[in-house]
Amino acid sequence: MPLPEKALIEEVRRFARSRSTGNVRLGIGDDCAIIGIPPRHEALVTTDFSLEGVHFRRQWHPPESVGHRCLARGLSDIAAMGGTPIAAFLSLALPARLPQSWVDRFIKGLLSLAKRYSVALAGGDTAQSPAGVLADIIVMGSVPKGTAVIRSGARPGNAIYVTGALGGSAATLNLLRTKRKVVPSETDRHFYPRPRLEVGRYLREKHIATAMIDLSDGLSTDLAHICDESSVGAEVEMPRLPLASAGKPPTSVSVDLALHGGEDYELLFTAPAKTRVPSVISGVPITRIGTITKVRGLFTRDASRRTPLLVRGWEHFRRT
Amino acid sequence: MPLPEKALIEEVRRFARSRSTGNVRLGIGDDCAIIGIPPRHEALVTTDFSLEGVHFRRQWHPPESVGHRCLARGLSDIAAMGGTPIAAFLSLALPARLPQSWVDRFIKGLLSLAKRYSVALAGGDTAQSPAGVLADIIVMGSVPKGTAVIRSGARPGNAIYVTGALGGSAATLNLLRTKRKVVPSETDRHFYPRPRLEVGRYLREKHIATAMIDLSDGLSTDLAHICDESSVGAEVEMPRLPLASAGKPPTSVSVDLALHGGEDYELLFTAPAKTRVPSVISGVPITRIGTITKVRGLFTRDASRRTPLLVRGWEHFRRT
Repeated sequence: MPLPEKALIEEVRRFARSRSTGNVRLGIGDDCAIIGIPPRHEALVTTDFSLEGVHFRRQWHPPESVGHRCLARGLSDIAAMGGTPIAAFLSLALPARLPQSWVDRFIKGLLSLAKRYSVALAGGDTAQSPAGVLADIIVMGSVPKGTAVIRSGARPGNAIYVTGALGGSAATLNLLRTKRKVVPSETDRHFYPRPRLEVGRYLREKHIATAMIDLSDGLSTDLAHICDESSVGAEVEMPRLPLASAGKPPTSVSVDLALHGGEDYELLFTAPAKTRVPSVISGVPITRIGTITKVRGLFTRDASRRTPLLVRGWEHFRRT
Repeated sequence: MPLPEKALIEEVRRFARSRSTGNVRLGIGDDCAIIGIPPRHEALVTTDFSLEGVHFRRQWHPPESVGHRCLARGLSDIAAMGGTPIAAFLSLALPARLPQSWVDRFIKGLLSLAKRYSVALAGGDTAQSPAGVLADIIVMGSVPKGTAVIRSGARPGNAIYVTGALGGSAATLNLLRTKRKVVPSETDRHFYPRPRLEVGRYLREKHIATAMIDLSDGLSTDLAHICDESSVGAEVEMPRLPLASAGKPPTSVSVDLALHGGEDYELLFTAPAKTRVPSVISGVPITRIGTITKVRGLFTRDASRRTPLLVRGWEHFRRT
């Protein structure tokens, strides 16, 4: 194995620099990390796989993007609770013949995003992989006790909102699938999604959101999660959907991608109809896209036409 | 895929029963779990892979044992800090053709151990695996602020102790390797290791241990970790080593297995020479095996002969 576990740990330690900063009382290199949770706060914990061939492909995604996306998945879950991230833990299994430079660039992409949000890499595990690069990211955060925005708080009559634009990540993935040359731009939400941490926190602090989820599986699937957990239905007004732009020259993505494409890592939330919701929060546009209904089931409305919205679960690369 | 992710989540939920108990304010089924940390405590976090072909083999290990071992790895890390486990998170990727009964039995083995220590399964992730069963267990626990027993506290003159007996797990693994029939007994520490949570907590509460680690990689490797982190050396008195018994009729394992065999999940700790250490804690024998030295380096002593102790890292199944 060209990358002994100890060398990897040393390298991550070097990148991560300090073993003990802020709420991370003890980082990489003991049986456990020790994390301080601020007084009157509770801990948030989320775990997300990033498996080669399932969540990314080495021939499509530069290593920096794989590292960035790996951590972004976890940070986005913290954002969806209105929380603040504290520390990340990385379980990383590497195949025997992986070039050292790939690992360096992966760690660089991950730590660059971590730095932007003051998240410490505080531990993890390493192993030799039986097949491809296997990563599992754990992000721990905190939120004042009893204030986390959960999925089950949507009420009939609530308005439904999304941050940013939808379908951009899936559009880039379609380009990759058709084997066109795609230059991984740092502003492309597929390669470098930005978790909406500031927006999530604002929505919690201002008591705006009644329910919230991040758009990792696609609008139809994630809206269904909110409706299932809240025992309500929803109606999406099609003309309101904020469609992402993609390609050169940029054109709007299809409504289909906006409804079902995954991995945009925007936030989907509900708020009482009378609550004033800013049209921009921390530079991110907020769009009202529909209404929560008492009647169960998901529907789309386009002018006067009401159509059942099929929940088409995002299945990563399985369809390819 | 015969096991849709949703079905797996539902099944785990059913097994795990309650979504909100004790310190787990919100369990499986939201963007994050919400975990309460007791006042004046800090959080402990550990992550451990259990990868098919690396940490276990389906033809050797019954699914209940794989689930048990998966969680035991994390609980043992909490024990080594003197902590109390609160919740576990399981990231689980399954190959397409895995029988449903395998998953049921795996979850059963994991949850049976979780129940014994009142640990909630509070979340995780699921995915389709590109190769074999891939599990990553995250265990979160707590410890009163500033009291965790870490690796770096060993001082010259401290006595070195281990719990239980050494080399038993590696002896069973050797039997498996030579393809002899091995009946997986519930008392076999290889198939069903018992994390030493009560002992770890006692050693912290009574201020006995100055440094502690769990024996997952083998005595020579794990003692080296304590010595590295504490900037000290160590001398192990060979006649004192508590050798495990294995086989039928039971015979003592070799000194080699006791020194270098991994996965015993016993505790290795140091204590001031004058501290009275009970010979049994919570039914587990405690044995003094040597002394911490100011001079760096690891040595064994057998009568008057002093020999350098080679650190032979445990490499799971790589040697097979």
